[in-house]
Amino acid sequence: MDVWKVISEGYNEQDAVDCGNRFLIGNGFVGIRGTLEEYRKDKQAACTLAGVYDKAENQTWREPVNIPNGFYAHIENPGEIESHTQCLDIKTGVHSRITEYKRAVLTIERFANMACVNTICQKITVIPKCAEVTLKCGIDSDVWDINGPHLMDLRAQGGEVISVSARTYEQDIPISVSERCDQTGYETVTENNSVYRVFKISEPFTVKRIIVINAGNEGVHENCGETLEGHTAVYESVAGTYDEMLEAHTAVWAKLWENSAVILKGDDEAQLALNYSLYHLHSIAPRHADNLSIAARGLSGQTYKGAVFWDTEIFLMPFFMYTEPETAKKLINYRIKTIDGAMKKAEEYGFKGAFYAWESQDGGAEGCTDFNVIDVFTERPVRTSFRDKQIHISGDIVYALLKYARWTGDNKIFDYGGIDLICACADFYKSRAYCRVGEKELEFPDVVGPDEYHERVDNNAFTNRIADLTLNYAKNRYKVRKPRLRDGIIEQFDGYFDLEDASLETVRSRLKHKREYWGTQSGVAFATQIIKQADVLAMMNLFPEDYTKEDFEKNWFYYEPRTEHGSSLSACMYALGACRFGRADLAYPMFLKSARADLDGGGKSWAGNVFIGGTHPASAGGAYMIVTQGFAGLKQEDNSLTLNPCLPKEIESIEFPVIFRGEKYKIKVTQNTSEIERVNNV
Amino acid sequence: MDVWKVISEGYNEQDAVDCGNRFLIGNGFVGIRGTLEEYRKDKQAACTLAGVYDKAENQTWREPVNIPNGFYAHIENPGEIESHTQCLDIKTGVHSRITEYKRAVLTIERFANMACVNTICQKITVIPKCAEVTLKCGIDSDVWDINGPHLMDLRAQGGEVISVSARTYEQDIPISVSERCDQTGYETVTENNSVYRVFKISEPFTVKRIIVINAGNEGVHENCGETLEGHTAVYESVAGTYDEMLEAHTAVWAKLWENSAVILKGDDEAQLALNYSLYHLHSIAPRHADNLSIAARGLSGQTYKGAVFWDTEIFLMPFFMYTEPETAKKLINYRIKTIDGAMKKAEEYGFKGAFYAWESQDGGAEGCTDFNVIDVFTERPVRTSFRDKQIHISGDIVYALLKYARWTGDNKIFDYGGIDLICACADFYKSRAYCRVGEKELEFPDVVGPDEYHERVDNNAFTNRIADLTLNYAKNRYKVRKPRLRDGIIEQFDGYFDLEDASLETVRSRLKHKREYWGTQSGVAFATQIIKQADVLAMMNLFPEDYTKEDFEKNWFYYEPRTEHGSSLSACMYALGACRFGRADLAYPMFLKSARADLDGGGKSWAGNVFIGGTHPASAGGAYMIVTQGFAGLKQEDNSLTLNPCLPKEIESIEFPVIFRGEKYKIKVTQNTSEIERVNNV
Repeated sequence: MDVWKVISEGYNEQDAVDCGNRFLIGNGFVGIRGTLEEYRKDKQAACTLAGVYDKAENQTWREPVNIPNGFYAHIENPGEIESHTQCLDIKTGVHSRITEYKRAVLTIERFANMACVNTICQKITVIPKCAEVTLKCGIDSDVWDINGPHLMDLRAQGGEVISVSARTYEQDIPISVSERCDQTGYETVTENNSVYRVFKISEPFTVKRIIVINAGNEGVHENCGETLEGHTAVYESVAGTYDEMLEAHTAVWAKLWENSAVILKGDDEAQLALNYSLYHLHSIAPRHADNLSIAARGLSGQTYKGAVFWDTEIFLMPFFMYTEPETAKKLINYRIKTIDGAMKKAEEYGFKGAFYAWESQDGGAEGCTDFNVIDVFTERPVRTSFRDKQIHISGDIVYALLKYARWTGDNKIFDYGGIDLICACADFYKSRAYCRVGEKELEFPDVVGPDEYHERVDNNAFTNRIADLTLNYAKNRYKVRKPRLRDGIIEQFDGYFDLEDASLETVRSRLKHKREYWGTQSGVAFATQIIKQADVLAMMNLFPEDYTKEDFEKNWFYYEPRTEHGSSLSACMYALGACRFGRADLAYPMFLKSARADLDGGGKSWAGNVFIGGTHPASAGGAYMIVTQGFAGLKQEDNSLTLNPCLPKEIESIEFPVIFRGEKYKIKVTQNTSEIERVNNV
Repeated sequence: MDVWKVISEGYNEQDAVDCGNRFLIGNGFVGIRGTLEEYRKDKQAACTLAGVYDKAENQTWREPVNIPNGFYAHIENPGEIESHTQCLDIKTGVHSRITEYKRAVLTIERFANMACVNTICQKITVIPKCAEVTLKCGIDSDVWDINGPHLMDLRAQGGEVISVSARTYEQDIPISVSERCDQTGYETVTENNSVYRVFKISEPFTVKRIIVINAGNEGVHENCGETLEGHTAVYESVAGTYDEMLEAHTAVWAKLWENSAVILKGDDEAQLALNYSLYHLHSIAPRHADNLSIAARGLSGQTYKGAVFWDTEIFLMPFFMYTEPETAKKLINYRIKTIDGAMKKAEEYGFKGAFYAWESQDGGAEGCTDFNVIDVFTERPVRTSFRDKQIHISGDIVYALLKYARWTGDNKIFDYGGIDLICACADFYKSRAYCRVGEKELEFPDVVGPDEYHERVDNNAFTNRIADLTLNYAKNRYKVRKPRLRDGIIEQFDGYFDLEDASLETVRSRLKHKREYWGTQSGVAFATQIIKQADVLAMMNLFPEDYTKEDFEKNWFYYEPRTEHGSSLSACMYALGACRFGRADLAYPMFLKSARADLDGGGKSWAGNVFIGGTHPASAGGAYMIVTQGFAGLKQEDNSLTLNPCLPKEIESIEFPVIFRGEKYKIKVTQNTSEIERVNNV
């Protein structure tokens, strides 16, 4: 097994569509779905830009803009497919496909340039088998759009440089995709706002194409040209041939892996899955920008509105903190810089301070609507409470900031907006909190915790704990109410234990529609103890010092059977929890599930009638957390690191680097030993 | 037009079924639906006992017990119906039907004896037209049951006295229905737990039947025998012939009308409707008992579980307070005596004091389940919040108690449990209330107000006001937060004005199923300003001294167009409100709607897939409130009464008696005059 390659053999149309997530490439600036070059909108072809949002006509929310597909290519009438292989080299982020048709063999290599993020590159080779064939390649505007159109005034232009330019509907942001290739002898065709070069090929033929993407969203993409006039001039600003770009791109990836690769000896399946997870994290990190974070579905399309969720702070932060502290800092800075959006949201609800967006878009604007689920029975949007009641988000950000500062030692972050952020979040919680008459303890009635199947609960344990952290740090004189206990089991929220204790099977058997949403007042889970995802266990993992091994064990065995794992964030928290009481055997399958989320596909693609398909970066980040914090048991003790391994029997040893307080360490854990070695300065 | 008779001419099967509510007779102890004598379960034949509840096997709630139908009668093979008339004399509570069949004429008169409430009486006359016909009459056990069976061990016995006896499923309460008639020459037939007398008739024939109902629910029915043994002996305890009983019964009705009839001169339609409303109130008043109140659907069947709602305190209390203070006192006493149920409910939710049942059954037990609506799309019960969040109920009871004491001058009620009740309700509110950090005002987040289409709102104006009344009376040092205002419009709850301001037509057009429930998180009204019923207007009518004429006017014109009037309690509050700003023209159609609710039928019979059909006593009570408090403008000023008429142009004058602080007054209002005359001591 090649632990650095993802390969799909044979052609099956539905599988090939599913490969859109699995074979994604990206460089933080743009993500290109792993759809085949000849695919269009109906097969979810999409090139998604980071941080460019648009609200389509008659829509109430923004979503990312999908731009024209510069990688479009197809052979006209190639005949039947005789063989087909799609391959992703996750060490270098190079995607390739070889398709042998009856009349020609088509080989295409492509990558999203890591060394110059507004370029994407493609090499097409066509070997005709008998007669002349026609290759049509260019910039195709027929890309996937969930709620579009977002691009107005589309103009396709031919010439030595071909281009499609447009402006976004809502904010009039100029967008352009230009391409230059290293071949001549083509005919140019413009049709339906797309532009193609048409080559007549009778001998083996290769064309190398460099595509430049411009988005005039000032400040977002510093490498971008700003004018739509004179595409040739814009294009010239990007130096280098295809081969030079591939070399530079590969060098960046090599450096990324040097600082992040985790070696799982003796378990190739796990190794491939983890490599693949980290590949995704690298592909979507916004290294090029100063005001971006990472969307919940990465750069795999428009689902979840391209918004930043708590996923980043809780599930992605450890990976970047350990391996790329400068990127971790960007993620924190995104929240610091977008505090205005959070202040505005708090004000909207009559609260003080900073109430961060549940689905944060540009400038911290809230992308979550009041109607985030569509009922499959009535096809009506249903009023959900994620936007207004999922208040743990502000505390999650405080948590990540404090963890980041403690890990990196970067205390300057406090002066550069960090303290303001924490105090604003504390102000928010203080204004949102209530006291019972005559009591001192703060309570948070009517909230939604991580378990979204139970909306509008009182005193969610997770929420109260994270609010308490925030208020404490801000030297608040109140304490937040602690959760109730029953025989050592932490009650997820007030009254949780009184809910129907129906089994998962029973609750599942009540479903009447395959896409039915389990939550909201009329969903099957709402009035039962069945939860969507780790909630109490998530809290325990964030604050492990509050709990004993026995606490972890008891709560794990209570809550896990009651968890539907309807979120890809769930398995990771249970795996981490199992490691806390020495049960790597319970953690291991959950690790594989987390790491393989996008390799295997098959996660929920629908919440009611809302499409939520795409990649799962948080699940990938979770896989990394399981290996480092769970299996290896890595823990920070102020100025030093400790290990408390809990290695599954399948894995002989784990080796990985971390950068801790500016110094690089190599960590190695085997079934019997564990060591932390300082390597050199970074 | 005879303003004392309700007549239905001609036979149409569906209409005849609908007549079940319209032609109801009752005496507070038992209600008999106005179904024809030959009707059975499938046509909703039911005899419903007051205060006898039972939980059927596998059910989670109790409902009233329907007993075997002693009025059952039919002619075998009578031939086609040639003419049919059903008539209710609302002055005397005597129901009659005349049906001319091809082969015979059947005339039946029946009444629920007001003078001796556990007897019901029937006179059957058969005139054969050519050949001999067969009359079968007796006690039929095939009665309507929504969630039964409730009767176990049914035994039908023949003899001079025929009887059906049984025991209730849950509590083993003995029930029996016995009958004796004034004719001989019959054959007795027992079949299917029923027993009949069969008469062969070849000449005009009349039989008079006296039916005795026993329910061994000790203390509930003081006129009942207690043993099931020896039905003859039990029967003998009821003295009198049919004619004697009819005379005594009619005399009681005459006395009731003497103290309550309202004369609306010049408007027969209104007069009939109001007479009919008061007829219903008289028919269901629990004069015979000391521990009963009035169910929301009266004695018209098992809907709403035979439970007592706020309807009694807010909509029925004025009628009984003005016309039968001793009955009003019974209604208050029911709450005082059932405080244990309310204490238990508060404790169940972790609160102090008395949290009264939203649907109060025997002993104050909560009959409301957490799942009070069945979704029409999934056919699943939906978690509603009426039981746990509709906290205004305790304050409604305090309100009624204070009004009762103030009107009647019966201050002893405070010593006999009244003060304890008020303090317990105040304790409840105090323990349910919250303060914002550093604030003094109490808030009530997460409640349901009268407008049940918006569950789980914060600071419902009605709820806060009624809690404030309660806390104030108990000398609480806190104030409850007042509602927000926008241009003089009272915000129904926090954030109401931010909801979608869609028109009623728009919201109605979103429905996808004719029985669909508008509330809950996925209902069409939930996220809009469309409300089920008067909520702000209800509050204003309960506390008119807080508001100016202009306040009433402004709020009326804001809220009325946004009200679906999905409750029969709604029109009355808007009619009263319109009178406060001198618009009898707006109030008049709402008065007719309230008064004619059960005459016209056509109200909602379904909440989702839950049957809620039945009579509407609160709507009848509301009609009385409109005439007395609205049109006549009757108001108590400490020791005296004042009038501030607002007479619709359709009505020349209004005359009615009230008993105020032990003295009887006659009130007369014309278009130009108003007078209050003391008549004599009661």
